[in-house]
Amino acid sequence: MNLEEYIKENTATFDAFLQDFLSINLTNHSAKLLEAMNYSLLNGGKRIRPLLVMAFAQNLDIKKEYYMNVALAVEFVHTYSLIHDDIMDDDDFRRGQLATHKKFDIPTAMLAGNSLLTWAFQILSDESTHPNTEVRNYLTGFLSSSSGHTGLAYGQSLDLEYQFGNKNADYKKILKMHDLKTARLFKFCTRAPFVLCNPKILLNNKKTEHLDIFGTNFGLIFQATDDLLDYRDLDKSVDLGNIMSYKNNDEVVNYCKKLAKEALASLKNLEIDSQVLTELIQFIIIRKS
Amino acid sequence: MNLEEYIKENTATFDAFLQDFLSINLTNHSAKLLEAMNYSLLNGGKRIRPLLVMAFAQNLDIKKEYYMNVALAVEFVHTYSLIHDDIMDDDDFRRGQLATHKKFDIPTAMLAGNSLLTWAFQILSDESTHPNTEVRNYLTGFLSSSSGHTGLAYGQSLDLEYQFGNKNADYKKILKMHDLKTARLFKFCTRAPFVLCNPKILLNNKKTEHLDIFGTNFGLIFQATDDLLDYRDLDKSVDLGNIMSYKNNDEVVNYCKKLAKEALASLKNLEIDSQVLTELIQFIIIRKS
Repeated sequence: MNLEEYIKENTATFDAFLQDFLSINLTNHSAKLLEAMNYSLLNGGKRIRPLLVMAFAQNLDIKKEYYMNVALAVEFVHTYSLIHDDIMDDDDFRRGQLATHKKFDIPTAMLAGNSLLTWAFQILSDESTHPNTEVRNYLTGFLSSSSGHTGLAYGQSLDLEYQFGNKNADYKKILKMHDLKTARLFKFCTRAPFVLCNPKILLNNKKTEHLDIFGTNFGLIFQATDDLLDYRDLDKSVDLGNIMSYKNNDEVVNYCKKLAKEALASLKNLEIDSQVLTELIQFIIIRKS
Repeated sequence: MNLEEYIKENTATFDAFLQDFLSINLTNHSAKLLEAMNYSLLNGGKRIRPLLVMAFAQNLDIKKEYYMNVALAVEFVHTYSLIHDDIMDDDDFRRGQLATHKKFDIPTAMLAGNSLLTWAFQILSDESTHPNTEVRNYLTGFLSSSSGHTGLAYGQSLDLEYQFGNKNADYKKILKMHDLKTARLFKFCTRAPFVLCNPKILLNNKKTEHLDIFGTNFGLIFQATDDLLDYRDLDKSVDLGNIMSYKNNDEVVNYCKKLAKEALASLKNLEIDSQVLTELIQFIIIRKS
């Protein structure tokens, strides 16, 4: 199976799992809040984070329901962050469709985001995610430290500062912001499957470090190429306050290639022989959307 | 010690614990996001939810750090909901001071709220809250189901609908909204200390039911008197879409007294002889702010 087929098949698997989950759990669809949650989740996402969780988990011996729950939780946090980003940036569209706050209204979109974030923790603490409370508890703690003021939310706040032309942003700060805003959640995606498989992995510092390098670098590449794609689409005279304020196209591609090389070395150190993961990280660099 | 002294002393204890916690954990105060979180938390709240957690916990044999962590987590969720409420309602002031989004800006306030919500789960999953992962995991799950689309956030969305004069709201729906928006978090406050003391309490349906009656009724009283206080302060010709659209002052007070009577009967059934809890629930009915 080539990468394109893998992505297609596994995205479909995730989407089916998500739809089942929603149809069981969002029974009162007539409520505006639940409609907005449903709309945001089914708004055609690329599902990169779930795919990463699934690709790692498929290399390990983990029950499908466990890792699919983790994939759900991550996608819920990601979707919440997009809903709120669109409000904060006053963006009317997301993936060619109306942003949640335009389809509904700002308060409903805020609450839909909040509910998805909250739900992620409910999913991780549910026994269907893992029979061992130590594992669930670790995942809850790690997702929260990856998402709040020590992770994603802090990164979002720095991003807003830099976007509005704050000249304090330099290249190093941009990369730190990328790490917080994007890479932390990817790091969660790579660590979580291993913890589901065997929580003792956290006692192995060397292994954890390699996992973290893969997740972090994957996330940094994803964000750098996001900046690149934004830049290609926009008026070049605008300073986006992103990586393109400091580097040109080729420099960003080289930076990504270097990160990918490191990530693949870590994969080798973890003794993971995964064609999917190898191709996926290279695909992210050359993606067109 | 009379109730006034109890409230004063325990509010001071909570505030000191909170300030210590923030000074240890929010080290990078120069960041706007962290400043906004700090501002919102130290904006002079009544600390009713922490007081309830503390009052129950003091009747049980629980280490102070455990129940103070739970009190923190609940206050973080409550504070997040207020920050977002003020944005959604476009209220400029909170407790006589600028609302967070007016002191800072809307995106920063949104992210500060999100970060406090997220942090609550991080606190509950931290081992300083309890050595037993089963307990922490239960608390995380219960806080999330109390706060998201099956609790607080759903209640907030119904509240917004009803406020904007949706004629579908009837008295029964208003009470359901009160339960979701307010009472669910109070229910968490009463159950959590017992779970910290002994998670096996959840196996005792009768005891859990009595705990839930106390917490729920306390919350319903709190919200009804909130509606009453709002009504007293405002132009009487405005339909607030709250309990005052259906009941007059005396009727609301009688409704609260009935709830308090039930709550105190539950307390007796739990064999809790607490003057503080008895007086606190009666104080809520006659409070002036």
